[in-house]
Amino acid sequence: MTRDEARARDAADPLRGLRDRFALPDGVIYLDGNSLGALPKTTPARLTDVVTEQWGRDLIAGWNAHGWIGAAVRAGGAIAPLIGAQADEVLVADSTSVNLFKLLAAACMARPERGTILSEPENFPTDLYMAQGVAGMLAGRRVKTVAFDDLVAAIDDDVAVVLLTHVHYKSGHKRDIAAITAAAHARGALVLWDLSHSAGAVAVDLNGCDVDLAVGCGYKYLNGGPGAPAFLYVARGLQETLRSPLSGWMGHAAPFDFHDDYAPAPGIARFQCGTPPILGIAALEEGVAQFDGVDLAALFAKGQALCDLYVALVEERCTGFVLASPRDGAHRGSHVSFAHPHAYAICQALIARRVVGDFRAPDVLRMGFAPLYTGFEDVWCAVDTLAAVMRERAWNDPAYRFRAAVT
Amino acid sequence: MTRDEARARDAADPLRGLRDRFALPDGVIYLDGNSLGALPKTTPARLTDVVTEQWGRDLIAGWNAHGWIGAAVRAGGAIAPLIGAQADEVLVADSTSVNLFKLLAAACMARPERGTILSEPENFPTDLYMAQGVAGMLAGRRVKTVAFDDLVAAIDDDVAVVLLTHVHYKSGHKRDIAAITAAAHARGALVLWDLSHSAGAVAVDLNGCDVDLAVGCGYKYLNGGPGAPAFLYVARGLQETLRSPLSGWMGHAAPFDFHDDYAPAPGIARFQCGTPPILGIAALEEGVAQFDGVDLAALFAKGQALCDLYVALVEERCTGFVLASPRDGAHRGSHVSFAHPHAYAICQALIARRVVGDFRAPDVLRMGFAPLYTGFEDVWCAVDTLAAVMRERAWNDPAYRFRAAVT
Repeated sequence: MTRDEARARDAADPLRGLRDRFALPDGVIYLDGNSLGALPKTTPARLTDVVTEQWGRDLIAGWNAHGWIGAAVRAGGAIAPLIGAQADEVLVADSTSVNLFKLLAAACMARPERGTILSEPENFPTDLYMAQGVAGMLAGRRVKTVAFDDLVAAIDDDVAVVLLTHVHYKSGHKRDIAAITAAAHARGALVLWDLSHSAGAVAVDLNGCDVDLAVGCGYKYLNGGPGAPAFLYVARGLQETLRSPLSGWMGHAAPFDFHDDYAPAPGIARFQCGTPPILGIAALEEGVAQFDGVDLAALFAKGQALCDLYVALVEERCTGFVLASPRDGAHRGSHVSFAHPHAYAICQALIARRVVGDFRAPDVLRMGFAPLYTGFEDVWCAVDTLAAVMRERAWNDPAYRFRAAVT
Repeated sequence: MTRDEARARDAADPLRGLRDRFALPDGVIYLDGNSLGALPKTTPARLTDVVTEQWGRDLIAGWNAHGWIGAAVRAGGAIAPLIGAQADEVLVADSTSVNLFKLLAAACMARPERGTILSEPENFPTDLYMAQGVAGMLAGRRVKTVAFDDLVAAIDDDVAVVLLTHVHYKSGHKRDIAAITAAAHARGALVLWDLSHSAGAVAVDLNGCDVDLAVGCGYKYLNGGPGAPAFLYVARGLQETLRSPLSGWMGHAAPFDFHDDYAPAPGIARFQCGTPPILGIAALEEGVAQFDGVDLAALFAKGQALCDLYVALVEERCTGFVLASPRDGAHRGSHVSFAHPHAYAICQALIARRVVGDFRAPDVLRMGFAPLYTGFEDVWCAVDTLAAVMRERAWNDPAYRFRAAVT
């Protein structure tokens, strides 16, 4: 494909106008929306209103006057259609890590006769760390990791919860939620799916797959801003049987009656803990609102097509890269990883040329294609820049080879 | 005291100019800064900068370019001088409730031979609820509550942690941190102080009192906005011996190396869990910055004097109110509660007249005096309005008597 052909494909794309909803910096090709989503144009004004008019003018009355008290449930309801859930099954709260703890612990405590949280090695680290934290507090529980190909066979009568990430953060592998959930249920285990790299980027049908529990991130494809609050999902039929051990007052049945003993609220609200972060929720609501009126099937198909084009162009124009993601878009999220021995320096050289992707240790160049604001010409130009970096051996520049402690 | 005398006292107050740092609505007397602090004038511009310039323009690079990755530790360091701590002993993270869980669980797990979390009944509900959540996960642990007057005598060899709130949310009673901490230590127990109603309003000397652990709220006297992130304190000498069971990736020693096993970071950073909420932290930093250059001893003395004036004027001008807070400012925080059978309707009638305080069940009218932005004339006018409400029996109006489910 030539640049003109890529441009023509954008021109023919009915979704191309969505990009105008975002305040992307000029001259940057941003392929890291899977780490931090772009800024919606409406977010600054929304935050100014919440801060200046709501907080500044109405002060404490804002909790009722501006619906702050219901913001966490309301924002969860807005995310629900993106993940195939009912509005009353999703809550915005805390961080993904904290939500993992809440749901994993609740699930383990609801299955006292089962001792194992089963996951795969190289799951996103915080998922494994939080599972270790849960197991460290609950007597007789342990975290077991089994290579993904052996995972279904390892679901036995001792498994309380199967904990998996839908789209793998590094490889982009997309797991089969329906099949694994069914296998877990056949053996009496619950499932908890981490949707951090899929919500807003690929089709998710939690209800259709009979999923028990899920969590996900607000600052990636949902465009909620740096450190945005996260979300959690609990299937309606399970809500009354699970209790979060993070039993904070905002999850109480009557928080303002100030009882000494905890009694969980009915429904999804019981999974709240502390006071909801109103500024963060407002920004996340704006991020999620960018999906309003969008044909989700077409959007997710575009994400796949962007990835396909990237794979094809890299393999056509650059040497030395080994595809580290599934070639078949049906088994892939909306990011693509290539392994290369100089991946870190190549990523730095690209950033210096204003093509922003990610490095993931030890040798992966990861590019994310947020379909709301990425076009085919972006992909073409990114690979053109990558080809130039390789041709000029720009990755050999010492300035790009020093790896900071934090990236 | 007459209104003119109150006005003269404001005119002579060297702290009176601090009020100009806040965007208070015209015509409102705001005596609820202990529920939600007022908006600092600098906060809207700070947030616009973080959102538009930092996130919008620099996107993922913001984590390093704008110091987001260190924001939680940096903001904690800014709070430290307000509570008598070192900068590397305080961290901004999560909600107060979640921080209670982290520190209570870590303390219990570090004292495996002791089974009791000791607190007082009618402690702020989320403190007791979170303790119940910790005890529900750790085999052999329990929460015991003992009336405050009997609490020190109840600290025995089974107590792992004494959990108390420094200033009681309803009565305003201020507990003696030094004496209770010493008593707990004498019996080998740790202490966890909740500073939600004291940080920024009364003197706190955590280091001087040898306090082990503390948490506190960012949206009250610290002016961080609705649902602002909270803070936690861990004494330097304890940091390496405690591990948070909310072992998220941001508390890992090497979060971006993506190891499968959790290893806590050195120092206070290990008490981070998920990705820090950058918008919320930025707003909280602005809130805390309002204390820059302020004589804290004078500020806290002013808070006491405002409370004293309020007590004197209510008792002089209104009948039927019973003081539910300590009369001696040395034993009181910066809010005052009076009991009255019609407290709810009286509070609503005051709000209708633009004097904003709080009702706390069953019969308490609570007024908070944030010394950064409250003056003596405010107190005079508030009581003048209260006297009018009582004189006119305005609380009898049915419009003020209906109590909404959420207040």
